[in-house]
Amino acid sequence: MTFELLATEGAARRGRLTTPHGAVDTPAFMPVGTRGTVKSLTPDDLREAGAQIVLANTYHLLLRPGHQIVRELGGLHRFMAWDGPILTDSGGFQVFSLAKLRKITEAGVEFRSDVDGSTHFLSPELSIEVQQALGADIIHPLDECLAYPASRQETERSLALTLGWARRSQAARAGGAQALFGIVQGGTWQDLRRRAVEETVALGFDGYAIGGMAVGEPKGAMYDLTELVAGLLPARQPRYLMGVGKPEDLVEAVARGVDLFDCVLPTRNARNGQAFTGAGPLTIKQAQYTRDPRPLDEACRCYACRRFSRAYLRHLFVSDELLAYRLLTLHNLHFFLGLVAAMRTALETGAFARFKARFFERDPVSFPDVSLDAERRPDPS
Amino acid sequence: MTFELLATEGAARRGRLTTPHGAVDTPAFMPVGTRGTVKSLTPDDLREAGAQIVLANTYHLLLRPGHQIVRELGGLHRFMAWDGPILTDSGGFQVFSLAKLRKITEAGVEFRSDVDGSTHFLSPELSIEVQQALGADIIHPLDECLAYPASRQETERSLALTLGWARRSQAARAGGAQALFGIVQGGTWQDLRRRAVEETVALGFDGYAIGGMAVGEPKGAMYDLTELVAGLLPARQPRYLMGVGKPEDLVEAVARGVDLFDCVLPTRNARNGQAFTGAGPLTIKQAQYTRDPRPLDEACRCYACRRFSRAYLRHLFVSDELLAYRLLTLHNLHFFLGLVAAMRTALETGAFARFKARFFERDPVSFPDVSLDAERRPDPS
Repeated sequence: MTFELLATEGAARRGRLTTPHGAVDTPAFMPVGTRGTVKSLTPDDLREAGAQIVLANTYHLLLRPGHQIVRELGGLHRFMAWDGPILTDSGGFQVFSLAKLRKITEAGVEFRSDVDGSTHFLSPELSIEVQQALGADIIHPLDECLAYPASRQETERSLALTLGWARRSQAARAGGAQALFGIVQGGTWQDLRRRAVEETVALGFDGYAIGGMAVGEPKGAMYDLTELVAGLLPARQPRYLMGVGKPEDLVEAVARGVDLFDCVLPTRNARNGQAFTGAGPLTIKQAQYTRDPRPLDEACRCYACRRFSRAYLRHLFVSDELLAYRLLTLHNLHFFLGLVAAMRTALETGAFARFKARFFERDPVSFPDVSLDAERRPDPS
Repeated sequence: MTFELLATEGAARRGRLTTPHGAVDTPAFMPVGTRGTVKSLTPDDLREAGAQIVLANTYHLLLRPGHQIVRELGGLHRFMAWDGPILTDSGGFQVFSLAKLRKITEAGVEFRSDVDGSTHFLSPELSIEVQQALGADIIHPLDECLAYPASRQETERSLALTLGWARRSQAARAGGAQALFGIVQGGTWQDLRRRAVEETVALGFDGYAIGGMAVGEPKGAMYDLTELVAGLLPARQPRYLMGVGKPEDLVEAVARGVDLFDCVLPTRNARNGQAFTGAGPLTIKQAQYTRDPRPLDEACRCYACRRFSRAYLRHLFVSDELLAYRLLTLHNLHFFLGLVAAMRTALETGAFARFKARFFERDPVSFPDVSLDAERRPDPS
């Protein structure tokens, strides 16, 4: 994997990641394909919406269908018929947010599957093995993602564990061809975040993820910590802010030097009937749309907006029709992918500061305050 | 609407219906778009699968979103963004199979909505008014669809009611531009079916539907009655066997002179995890497909078969992923639309008898015996 910086403006960066499965223009948003599918969409839909890379969850694929089966079937790219780049997380976040009866030791984490109650043990070595079997282009070391708030003592313990696991993950993937990103933890303590950057960078990874954000901390803290961490990370390597976020978070984080994002917000909210638009969020089930012949967003060129009215989409949604989820998902991804594309264009022309100012003027952004710590979890439905 | 006969072989016919929204090559299969959507698919998917006409249900659209709203939004074609021909039923079948607390009089039928419990009264005149508001190319008079078995006396009473309603429907649509098909009822009594044909044809419709089939009667009776009725109907007008059926039923009915079919089997069974293939049905959740790299049907060229393995589709299905329903629906419609296309080709070359013999040889057809009387009902899920 290589990463080029094509342009910068302040801390913001326009770059290009090149992976064995193709290039990713950054800043980039990665649709979440939890179980090897971005819910309701085909790989062709994703391409059409402008996706260049998707994220898949190691935890879910480990439990079902199992990484050996995916390997046997030619790896995740072939399994899900997506020939572009794939990034996998380590499974840590889901073990800590979804699984039951966790027991954490230095060796790893024992947990019960939320699928069938079976007991599993995930170690840093097994996480790497699973991700190698899946064959993603970018993989991650097992880390502990603390809930917010956590005490300083607890955060120090956790950081030491994550750093130890990072070392073991690096040893485990020795010689592997996949890019391995280090994960910077450290909670909300600036000095611990500093230490996390120093020690993680000292290990030498192909890129760096900022973890433990959007887990309930105040928004200002997230922006400040992102700025701190991004400012300390090596300029020549990609930076990925895990599980973030809302449209305004993407703009704020790009301004602070982040290159990669993933979030279930566009896909999950679509299934809950919420469309992102340039004029703010739109809750399609509302009675005001019953006779509304306009598209979701008059400025949008996605398939849903080119072909269907709000009235029809509302009818589908209140009728529990599968097509509603699909069309809203397509639209929302189009919105998120369009937003990062707009930021890339602005960065190419030195117009990012102006773009950012206009974004916040035009769009006072009252995107709903869904609990961010739940955002990376799959819809239980 | 015009109907041309392009070729015949025995009783079987190859024809072409021309409607204000385009042509329909017959024999044709109409995907069921109950609420103005063929579940999980877009109009473009339908085109790609080879659909030339879709069916929508008057009952469902009357209750939600309401026919006035559809009219206000430019009619059903525009509402659902399908610019090809649409056929609507009269609402009768669903009133009798879905609604609660029905009270039937000569005036019409009073019922409670299965959506919200509200009371409605559907008369032959209102059914025509609703279908005119929707703007389908082919519409139907309100009829009573009897359950099987029904006594001779009950069937005679019902037939008289249906014939009276047919007369009133014709008066109600006077001057309307839509094609109106007469519906031939008469239960399982051959002489009542004869009388039904005579009296319905005497009224003079643009085409004829054979109703009250696949409601639980023995398969032999369905084939015999279809043969009888089709043989008595005017040769120069299209014949539509309502709510039928399984692949073998389509072949048997085409052999007896039927031109049009609709059935929820391909779409509903897809959502239940069943794929139709040339080698018989395939239940995707079975463990035997866990590691199966083959497509659903190696002879199939649909998108699902070109891109995905049984193992992946099984993974999606057992994980309740929306994409599973979509891909299986696409495949099954491709199968049904491919079957009628194959029959058309056979008829064009005088090879239908040979096609039929080979169809039953190659495919001993053990399509599951789902209760046929439920087939036109929407999935309650």
